Amino acid sequence: MKTPEINTLGPPEPIDYSVVMEPINGDPTGKNLLSMRQLSAEDIHLYIEEAYAAERFVQDPKQRGVALLSNVEMRVVMRQPSTRTGGSLTAAMHKLGGSAVLISGMGSSSEAKGESIEDSWVAFAAQADILGIRTEEDRGPALAARVIAQAFEQDQLWQSVPVINLGDGKNEHPTQALGDEFTIYKQFGQFAGVEVAMVGDHERYRAHHSFMIGAAILGMNIIAVESKAAVVPEDLVELLGDRLTRTKDLDGAMRYANVLYLGRNPDEYTGVKKAEAARSKKLAKDYKGWVVDYQRIQKMPRDSIVLHPRPRRDELHPSVDIDPRMKDVEQMANMTPIRMAIIARHLGRSIKEAEIIHKDSEKLTP
Amino acid sequence: MKTPEINTLGPPEPIDYSVVMEPINGDPTGKNLLSMRQLSAEDIHLYIEEAYAAERFVQDPKQRGVALLSNVEMRVVMRQPSTRTGGSLTAAMHKLGGSAVLISGMGSSSEAKGESIEDSWVAFAAQADILGIRTEEDRGPALAARVIAQAFEQDQLWQSVPVINLGDGKNEHPTQALGDEFTIYKQFGQFAGVEVAMVGDHERYRAHHSFMIGAAILGMNIIAVESKAAVVPEDLVELLGDRLTRTKDLDGAMRYANVLYLGRNPDEYTGVKKAEAARSKKLAKDYKGWVVDYQRIQKMPRDSIVLHPRPRRDELHPSVDIDPRMKDVEQMANMTPIRMAIIARHLGRSIKEAEIIHKDSEKLTP
Amino acid sequence: MKTPEINTLGPPEPIDYSVVMEPINGDPTGKNLLSMRQLSAEDIHLYIEEAYAAERFVQDPKQRGVALLSNVEMRVVMRQPSTRTGGSLTAAMHKLGGSAVLISGMGSSSEAKGESIEDSWVAFAAQADILGIRTEEDRGPALAARVIAQAFEQDQLWQSVPVINLGDGKNEHPTQALGDEFTIYKQFGQFAGVEVAMVGDHERYRAHHSFMIGAAILGMNIIAVESKAAVVPEDLVELLGDRLTRTKDLDGAMRYANVLYLGRNPDEYTGVKKAEAARSKKLAKDYKGWVVDYQRIQKMPRDSIVLHPRPRRDELHPSVDIDPRMKDVEQMANMTPIRMAIIARHLGRSIKEAEIIHKDSEKLTP
Repeated sequence: MKTPEINTLGPPEPIDYSVVMEPINGDPTGKNLLSMRQLSAEDIHLYIEEAYAAERFVQDPKQRGVALLSNVEMRVVMRQPSTRTGGSLTAAMHKLGGSAVLISGMGSSSEAKGESIEDSWVAFAAQADILGIRTEEDRGPALAARVIAQAFEQDQLWQSVPVINLGDGKNEHPTQALGDEFTIYKQFGQFAGVEVAMVGDHERYRAHHSFMIGAAILGMNIIAVESKAAVVPEDLVELLGDRLTRTKDLDGAMRYANVLYLGRNPDEYTGVKKAEAARSKKLAKDYKGWVVDYQRIQKMPRDSIVLHPRPRRDELHPSVDIDPRMKDVEQMANMTPIRMAIIARHLGRSIKEAEIIHKDSEKLTP
Repeated sequence: MKTPEINTLGPPEPIDYSVVMEPINGDPTGKNLLSMRQLSAEDIHLYIEEAYAAERFVQDPKQRGVALLSNVEMRVVMRQPSTRTGGSLTAAMHKLGGSAVLISGMGSSSEAKGESIEDSWVAFAAQADILGIRTEEDRGPALAARVIAQAFEQDQLWQSVPVINLGDGKNEHPTQALGDEFTIYKQFGQFAGVEVAMVGDHERYRAHHSFMIGAAILGMNIIAVESKAAVVPEDLVELLGDRLTRTKDLDGAMRYANVLYLGRNPDEYTGVKKAEAARSKKLAKDYKGWVVDYQRIQKMPRDSIVLHPRPRRDELHPSVDIDPRMKDVEQMANMTPIRMAIIARHLGRSIKEAEIIHKDSEKLTP
Repeated sequence: MKTPEINTLGPPEPIDYSVVMEPINGDPTGKNLLSMRQLSAEDIHLYIEEAYAAERFVQDPKQRGVALLSNVEMRVVMRQPSTRTGGSLTAAMHKLGGSAVLISGMGSSSEAKGESIEDSWVAFAAQADILGIRTEEDRGPALAARVIAQAFEQDQLWQSVPVINLGDGKNEHPTQALGDEFTIYKQFGQFAGVEVAMVGDHERYRAHHSFMIGAAILGMNIIAVESKAAVVPEDLVELLGDRLTRTKDLDGAMRYANVLYLGRNPDEYTGVKKAEAARSKKLAKDYKGWVVDYQRIQKMPRDSIVLHPRPRRDELHPSVDIDPRMKDVEQMANMTPIRMAIIARHLGRSIKEAEIIHKDSEKLTP
């Protein structure tokens, strides 16, 4: 009798993630959010409507005290250290009346004791109702979702636990993209035909990937400012089709665009491989030509906006801060309501519905 | 006049811990939980009944919103880094509507400023309503409990703060043992006569110690699989008496046992002393003969179960995961309700009673 | 067209912090707490009355369940590592039913990605409703308050976020001083004429600075025990005027004082500069003459008290712990209610008022 080869999820056979990447299809309840590819335009609007409700909820003191997710526990596991995304997810959960524990940095103490990453994910799932995960590897959150689903099917866990992808390697960052798109919708009230000029390392910057997938779904047009080192990946070129324009002329793109979306040089990858370091060095040169300051954004239309998923470095000069086109701080603040929306809906709750109920009960009070 | 020698708790005179290790005797309110030796069979059943209520509380969405411990603050101080035990205690507190702060890693910043460990414990007690403590040293949580009791007696603290031992050196790990025993009770509905085969480093593995003391209290029988390097300590041999069978034959024990309780090689002690490193090396050889995989557990009775306080390493092969006898993930998940039970009862609250009240008020709603 | 020089807050031009250091003037709502210089005697009594209410709230189980700050999020950013102040602020927020995230240690992961400290403060402000900040640099929290105010004025943030100074370099530590003064008031029921003997590094110890400013406001008299290395700074000499007596005789001061306020040698500054290390070394010698043990405090009047903002080291011998004059542990415990008072009032809430309402509603219940 041969020992069955179960749970040895590594190579050689490629892993089928489709089972944990279901289409959201109007109802996120209990599902994972791993990729923008799971979403339709209707799904994105669902999150955005919830985010509007979340914003009212946060900004209106009368709404305070509504503990939508009391006794609900979230684990935010940031295997790449993060204060911002981790912090905004924690804040989002707290604002919903739930609890959150942020674990930041590579490796847990259990891994130091020799535990496999697969076992660690099951351990986190056994202690929480929802998981937010960032990994250095592409598809790390998908791997987590798969072993958790497996443990649930084998009756080892009493509940399956939704996994929210908070950035996986050079692959995707869907909650960032949803927040970016929420910011654009707040400004223009629509997506169709909005022209977004994108600058940065299109190949390695995961926020760009998720945004471009979302743009294809929502009908926005992308003007990708490219260099030899910064080329839009083939699968995204294909996905965007006619919606993609490619150029080397940043200033030209800025004159025309409704949105300038600037990304930083993701050179935290530098340490990993020699090739990565060489890329980062080449890109550093390109970035010198892409520096955006107060003077440069004067070329943009009056009603255009500038986005940048902070942290910023030299590529976005602080002199821009007084210009009303800058929406990068609001974009950062928008991450809280959009993540409230995501957490609530993936746990089967709606902030919008809670709000209506709350208002109704107010009416009943004489 | 001589300066009285107060608070110099180190050697040479041995410390009397009995005052902080009261028998639970049916009422954990305000008491410390430092050792399984504080418990009777009735006490263990008290925790288990509460854990059942906690499980219903966690799994039934209607129960959510009952904040049994609102405004109550727990400090979980893990001086040996831990994500699992610390995380499960934090989750347990959050699920009860209370707050928890997890401090993981050796030494606090105050110690870096030269504070004594005794002063640190009093500082933590001044900021919390209950403390969970793990230490590298045997009886570290007992020392904490003693200095806190002293500060309370001297009117320095307005309340005494219960201390829960989350693992102290090579001594004990009572909350783990209570969760293990909860898992066994859920399976068999009784303890009397249950045969538990135990494999691992009986001398250094604290979870084994607490489990064996519990077994003696509850009337379970222990079949200890021993090697030259892994011998049951003399005091436990004495305590278990006729209930202990000692063998070198793991497979024989597995054919007979209702429960296989496998523990990992606790070689985190390796760094400490040369003798410990030598022990760990010898044990590593023994563990090669103790590897449990899918094939090996087929020898066990159909209705038997396998426990392992994760993290696991090579000693438990992932191939076992598809076998329904594996209860190690459920065992891990059981730590949340059992720790909810412990926290609530040591703070004088009962989840079971809150549940009944909640049900009654539901009946009143037309 | 010249790029405007915005947000480059460093030298050469000195920063005007007055705009973020408004007088509290009876209403802390929405204001920062950066310096004791913002306070009048009435303001300090306002915090103290709230702290009494907070103490009743914490110590009376019937008050539990009143979530005064539910859904409110605090960020405690300790750029100098701290378990005590950070922990007490976190506990204070939790006890008010709010949420808190403690970030301890120099530098965030975003700074590692190259973010400016100014941008980091705006990022924290975008995720929270109130910030507690400790910095290694003098006026670090004031800098944070200034960039946050700026971002709010530029419409980048939807709310301005009060900043509470939790210790800035060698400058101030106002929440510590307010807790110290609360402790004195609890003992003597008044401030006027209370004689406080102060020992320690008057120049570098920020808790001493804030306490002395408070003493000047409240009408306490200070007997500063000085050495060549430990001299009261000129601005405080001026501020205290006749209220300050300077001496080299600790024992003489102890015979006369109502309060002995002992501070530790703040030699964490040692690493920074050669001059600082030399100072710390000189002070270490002075501290040998300032060691306070059981014998020495017998010289103090019966109804006097001894304060020390823990952690203590050799300067305060554990033998003192049995003497009823020691109030250092109570002083430490008092930090929770005073910080509850500060958090609540700066967010526009009153624990005292919530308490009265709560009592009234109790009366209504038949």
